[in-house]
Amino acid sequence: MVSTAGILIIGDEILSGRTKDTNSNWLSKELNLLGIRLEEITVIPDNKSRIIDLVKSFSKKFTYVFTCGGIGPTHDDITTESIAEAFNLKLEKNKEAMKVLQIHYKNSNIEFNEARQKMAIIPIGAKLIDNPVSAAPGFIVENVYVFAGVPQIMHSMFGGVSNQLIGGKYVFSKTITCNLGEGKIAKSLKYIEDKYKNLKIGSYPYFRPESFGTSIVLRCEKEEIIDKASEELIRSIEENGGKGNILLS
Amino acid sequence: MVSTAGILIIGDEILSGRTKDTNSNWLSKELNLLGIRLEEITVIPDNKSRIIDLVKSFSKKFTYVFTCGGIGPTHDDITTESIAEAFNLKLEKNKEAMKVLQIHYKNSNIEFNEARQKMAIIPIGAKLIDNPVSAAPGFIVENVYVFAGVPQIMHSMFGGVSNQLIGGKYVFSKTITCNLGEGKIAKSLKYIEDKYKNLKIGSYPYFRPESFGTSIVLRCEKEEIIDKASEELIRSIEENGGKGNILLS
Repeated sequence: MVSTAGILIIGDEILSGRTKDTNSNWLSKELNLLGIRLEEITVIPDNKSRIIDLVKSFSKKFTYVFTCGGIGPTHDDITTESIAEAFNLKLEKNKEAMKVLQIHYKNSNIEFNEARQKMAIIPIGAKLIDNPVSAAPGFIVENVYVFAGVPQIMHSMFGGVSNQLIGGKYVFSKTITCNLGEGKIAKSLKYIEDKYKNLKIGSYPYFRPESFGTSIVLRCEKEEIIDKASEELIRSIEENGGKGNILLS
Repeated sequence: MVSTAGILIIGDEILSGRTKDTNSNWLSKELNLLGIRLEEITVIPDNKSRIIDLVKSFSKKFTYVFTCGGIGPTHDDITTESIAEAFNLKLEKNKEAMKVLQIHYKNSNIEFNEARQKMAIIPIGAKLIDNPVSAAPGFIVENVYVFAGVPQIMHSMFGGVSNQLIGGKYVFSKTITCNLGEGKIAKSLKYIEDKYKNLKIGSYPYFRPESFGTSIVLRCEKEEIIDKASEELIRSIEENGGKGNILLS
């Protein structure tokens, strides 16, 4: 069985272009290493009904759902209440979260006011996710992992739960760059992909001021298939008058 | 009436983490400048049924849909046929596209082979989008704009059609950074947002090795409201013992 995942990035600031979403690329690499196949990334605004709809549909479609953003102390942080509503759960001031936050703010000499206490409000029955950076926890409801949007915090939260995620087989990959246009080798790529079972070949043209060419990515659970196929591909590139190089990644 | 948009990024290479999607951030800024409200960005694999489903649902939900990726000459480029199927259109070797490509490959001294001719296959009735970089055109079907995935090409394609897009009012924004945690000013932010009609305030904490604080983004169609609200906000930050700076962006 293959585990799949969907990522939900929540925040107006991404859609307005003000903030670059680096979380989904970071997560996609981590999931790839765990052998979990990422199937979809969606970015939506801080809008309750949109969050509810997508969390519900992602939770049904994928083995794991990861949300990033919207669990802070301010008025535009509405992810927690939306997730609760998506799963028909009541919210409560979580005792464990309150304790962690109390200690954090006491040690930092910062007032633990009403807005900050909002970050201890968690759906009843959710499992907390540690936040070693700024204390306010994430949480898990069913197969939905609710992370903060700040990259450092998100990374540390993922680190705390990644050992619980069940992945499939690791997918090996090899990238070959060649100095031929995509169109020149399109036929060979299709031929080689069809020849080897479970091999997937992606082809990505590049254009630089001084040159152009194609990056070809071979992906397969079996490394020996990638090795064979890439030898065959390099021969085919040479037969077409080009030169292929294996990129060490 | 507000024009809305959805972006569909198509490509396995984004979901595996191999390639960083820079297209959606670039497009989101351009759309923002045109006063078009970007409502959703979705990244999906090179999978026909997924492309068809999302193109259909995006086309119904948003004023404009922009797709990036999957219109090249290789076997993994399946966007064009998927779009045709989504709108029940037949494909044809487009005469205009054939002509442009013929000239391009002739001038480049490159063989215009079968794989490359695939890039001239376009849904019947679609409007072509110029590609000044590598000739192979994008196209428009109903409200769906089909762009290449290579950033330079996508940028030039968007440049060729952006004057046809009808935007709403430009949304002004101002960013204020302050040396207080989000939790300290959460109450003021909500108070100010509620006070000024149509003002939206987003709040984004930052953590640096030497400091922490909050970036606050005010957005409104009326610049004078932003000016008033940000004055009030800075006063409120100072009353809470902090210092607020307007960021020139």
